Amino acid sequence: MKQTAVLIITHGKFGIELLKSVEMIIGEQQDAFALGLCLGNDVDDLRNDAEKIVRKAKESGKDVIILVDLLGGSPSNVALYMAKAHDVKVVTGVNILMLIELFSSRESKEVDELLAAVVSTGVEGIKQFPQ
Amino acid sequence: MKQTAVLIITHGKFGIELLKSVEMIIGEQQDAFALGLCLGNDVDDLRNDAEKIVRKAKESGKDVIILVDLLGGSPSNVALYMAKAHDVKVVTGVNILMLIELFSSRESKEVDELLAAVVSTGVEGIKQFPQ
Repeated sequence: MKQTAVLIITHGKFGIELLKSVEMIIGEQQDAFALGLCLGNDVDDLRNDAEKIVRKAKESGKDVIILVDLLGGSPSNVALYMAKAHDVKVVTGVNILMLIELFSSRESKEVDELLAAVVSTGVEGIKQFPQ
Repeated sequence: MKQTAVLIITHGKFGIELLKSVEMIIGEQQDAFALGLCLGNDVDDLRNDAEKIVRKAKESGKDVIILVDLLGGSPSNVALYMAKAHDVKVVTGVNILMLIELFSSRESKEVDELLAAVVSTGVEGIKQFPQ
């Protein structure tokens, strides 16, 4: 079973805090990274930082899943570039449920099965109350 | 049309940063609040802070939608308590797409219609690439 590295990319710092919040709930994670594009940041720097993380993971034989906030804008552009250039998987619409599933299941599932579980867990966790 | 106030409650600070990230994309929002439960924080303080925000909004005739990270844990417990005690709506699994929809549509939709749009936008924004 290949290991899977995780990279979160968002507008602003919420992806960085999201990773901290997940770790607060389920404990510290290895091979888990988060980058944010803040006002005044250079998109080339974001792409370079992402590419360093992806290359290092791929060179050590790991799969990579990148989670972004939404389709459209620089975070997803960078992620979709990585998908083409480095054969990584991308998921949009990141929420905390997707990350809990990802970190809990990545030791026991191959990347395609893992990706499907992440998407369905993210979707199923969106509920309204009162129902 | 009643106005709708928005409150985000999460583990850690990611909800606070999530609100900042949304505002970075679509501009500053009125009647938009975010609270986070960090390690060492008292849940009673969180509930009191949330209740102050909800009471103030309701007293000025607004509907309230609370978005939380996940079902389970203190943020959703506080939100579901508010749902019962103060007749507010709650959505779990918050992602940035839900917030963009909420802030973009709250002037033109009643709260139930708004809630349905928020949930479906959040769900539909979760996609994997390559597809």
